[in-house]
Amino acid sequence: MAARARPHDEALIEGLRAIVGDRGLVTGTDVRARSCDPFRPVPPLGPAIVRPACTEDVSRILSFCQARGQGVVTHGGRTGVAGGAYADADDIVLSLERMNRIEEVDPVGPCMTVEAGVTIEAVQNAAAERDLLYPVDFGAKGSATVGGSIATNAGGNRVVRWGMTRANVLGIEAVLADGTVVSAMNRLVKNNTGYDLKHLFIGSEGTTGIVTRAVLRLVAAPCSQHVAFVGLAGFAAVLDLLSRARRLPALSAFEVMWQDYYVLVAGHDATRMPIDTRFPFCVLVETMGYDAETDAVLFDRFLEGAYAAGVIGDAVMANSGQQAADLWRVREGSEIIVRAMSPFVSFDISVDIRRAEAFVAEARAALEERFARVRTVTFGHLGDNNLHLGIHIGPDTAAREIEIEHCVYGVVGEFGGALTAEHGVGRLKRAFLPGHVSPGALDVMRRVRSALDPDHALNRKVLF
Amino acid sequence: MAARARPHDEALIEGLRAIVGDRGLVTGTDVRARSCDPFRPVPPLGPAIVRPACTEDVSRILSFCQARGQGVVTHGGRTGVAGGAYADADDIVLSLERMNRIEEVDPVGPCMTVEAGVTIEAVQNAAAERDLLYPVDFGAKGSATVGGSIATNAGGNRVVRWGMTRANVLGIEAVLADGTVVSAMNRLVKNNTGYDLKHLFIGSEGTTGIVTRAVLRLVAAPCSQHVAFVGLAGFAAVLDLLSRARRLPALSAFEVMWQDYYVLVAGHDATRMPIDTRFPFCVLVETMGYDAETDAVLFDRFLEGAYAAGVIGDAVMANSGQQAADLWRVREGSEIIVRAMSPFVSFDISVDIRRAEAFVAEARAALEERFARVRTVTFGHLGDNNLHLGIHIGPDTAAREIEIEHCVYGVVGEFGGALTAEHGVGRLKRAFLPGHVSPGALDVMRRVRSALDPDHALNRKVLF
Repeated sequence: MAARARPHDEALIEGLRAIVGDRGLVTGTDVRARSCDPFRPVPPLGPAIVRPACTEDVSRILSFCQARGQGVVTHGGRTGVAGGAYADADDIVLSLERMNRIEEVDPVGPCMTVEAGVTIEAVQNAAAERDLLYPVDFGAKGSATVGGSIATNAGGNRVVRWGMTRANVLGIEAVLADGTVVSAMNRLVKNNTGYDLKHLFIGSEGTTGIVTRAVLRLVAAPCSQHVAFVGLAGFAAVLDLLSRARRLPALSAFEVMWQDYYVLVAGHDATRMPIDTRFPFCVLVETMGYDAETDAVLFDRFLEGAYAAGVIGDAVMANSGQQAADLWRVREGSEIIVRAMSPFVSFDISVDIRRAEAFVAEARAALEERFARVRTVTFGHLGDNNLHLGIHIGPDTAAREIEIEHCVYGVVGEFGGALTAEHGVGRLKRAFLPGHVSPGALDVMRRVRSALDPDHALNRKVLF
Repeated sequence: MAARARPHDEALIEGLRAIVGDRGLVTGTDVRARSCDPFRPVPPLGPAIVRPACTEDVSRILSFCQARGQGVVTHGGRTGVAGGAYADADDIVLSLERMNRIEEVDPVGPCMTVEAGVTIEAVQNAAAERDLLYPVDFGAKGSATVGGSIATNAGGNRVVRWGMTRANVLGIEAVLADGTVVSAMNRLVKNNTGYDLKHLFIGSEGTTGIVTRAVLRLVAAPCSQHVAFVGLAGFAAVLDLLSRARRLPALSAFEVMWQDYYVLVAGHDATRMPIDTRFPFCVLVETMGYDAETDAVLFDRFLEGAYAAGVIGDAVMANSGQQAADLWRVREGSEIIVRAMSPFVSFDISVDIRRAEAFVAEARAALEERFARVRTVTFGHLGDNNLHLGIHIGPDTAAREIEIEHCVYGVVGEFGGALTAEHGVGRLKRAFLPGHVSPGALDVMRRVRSALDPDHALNRKVLF
């Protein structure tokens, strides 16, 4: 563990200023003006935010901090919901916000070389200009950065087709806690030249090093989109539909909504009720392809086949981009959940798809055994095993958050599920990590972290 | 470095026998009867091959070996061409051959749980029985094992669609050099619960631990295949065709053959000459989909569009599975290379696709500057950056192998290419590794290896 620096340490600030200059430094009350949490004000508590302009700066900052035993918390877009960006009084913040250059778009690779501080949206736009797509897509993309998305292995809606961030990164440059610059800016799909080091940094939540640059993998930009919203009579039908959907090479989303979710969203907004609310399950299916005509034929055949086999009870298909967006709005009803169900505790877990219905029933039963009044919303990217669960147990929901978490994570454990599917462990789920990985696995995580950051100076309260 | 064990150490053999019994042990001349190389006899030189029956055995063997400072080389199917399975007099061999159970096929995941000693072909067959596909496919699949394919991150023909082995593994169980069992048998597509430990073992060539079990990701089995063999007038046309092919969601192979390759293969076997040999480049394009009718429409449109735009000069399309296999036989002409061009030195490198033609020209020029007579064959999975290059410089080709390698790898370095695309570094390319990764990257590789195997007891002459 790093020794703690004194707050308002003048020597610290002057040392940082010598590296990055005035423009690269935020101090005093300006530090408190930021938040480390996207939903509520959680200011950094330390004396400074340092804003390097280049990899060399990052290296010098970290060498300087290591010599002082100074803890560092890395900031990207500060959109993470697991507390990974929270910074204590004895942490300085290192923000990549000035390192936001798009260095090159290679249309043949196809790939893009960027600095870590560029936003996902900027990457998507630069790709689109070349008729390419960066397929990682999630709600916070306007603020979230490449570096943050790599550190947290961000997921999102299109993982069923293109995978998590991990699958869309070819190369990385990172700086270790001692200032060592690790250049592994690979741009080749096939490259077995030694260990593939990027995976030490992807999903490590900033605990193994600071990602400074990356090579992102792109795909040709799809030009055709098909979206349907369907109602199903039971979970067996959901599994059947998923198995049919997996035979669409252009499948780009398979989003499942339990009835508790759909009734809530449709009940609060009549423009988000494409079909009757009587179905126990609704699914949004999307394909994104390159040939409108055959894509339409395949999508129609998929829906007709499922309907003829009695798999789906009702379906609405989008006939325009606007209608497609309207159907997506049903799935993206989180602001209604916030409005109608607060306070609530939210979960981002993964389970064996076959057991998802049983898991939800069991989690609900466990909650009902403990709490008098339980309200849930259940939805998620089920094609990737991912479920989001919102739990409300009355006005003291927030006060009893830990109890609720123990209850749900207990069932997750029984089902062999994942503590966190895509949001990460951060600080907020740290206490639960040892219960959700094997002892040997935790041992290896500790060995790797210590090999790369022996003092645990980077994001030291994150993960373990 | 591990202390060297004495050859024929009776205490060693008796200790191993106590763990695995007679059935689990091969000693004496039976050890020499095997080869560590698929192409020539390279027997293990140590006193024993130990054949554990379960993970617990592996753990006990490694604990026992660590206490004795005994080096261990792991054997899967022994099909690797980089010398990763070579074993010296002071190495024992640990073979996973008895751990070859398929534990479960989950058709919904879809995924398969297996022991590491099962062959790729057995996995493919078990998947096919459930109308599923394990998409990792390469020539040695009948002998190559899951464990070996994971250790080397095996590639093959369909990487352009489904990725390397790394992209097709969900979870791993591995045993560290000290006997620690690392269970990370994840079966979830989305799981950010701490570091994703499987990546420490995938592609590490057995230097970080021994993979004992794995969860493999499956896909729905395609039911339609389209293959074309086309001739192109220049490299710009190859790039244009690739860009068009990337808009086929069912694209499963894009194999480029330089004229030196095609003239050789077609010249030696008239049944492998689907088109004239006048083109500087030939490409085999394949799609594998789920709807024969629309797949055919898309494939025809792709070829017609490329022809109309003047991108391709001639094309032959397979009209049956047999014709498709015949076209693939043109691409799989390695036995002709062996017959007609031996001795030769073969290379498995990756380069920026845009610069592949320039790279080949430059490598040839460098060779011609040094050697009086240079003959090459050039082909590869270019959609994944991968080129295979065979070089013959006359009867003393084998004797001057190192010179040839320095010459070619020098140009690979200048072009920012990869020393090895899919075959791995093993022992045979070890001397070149430091020249092809950055110093910081090599530093991190050393740190990680030492964190997991401080004595470097596992595959100790592999990689670095």
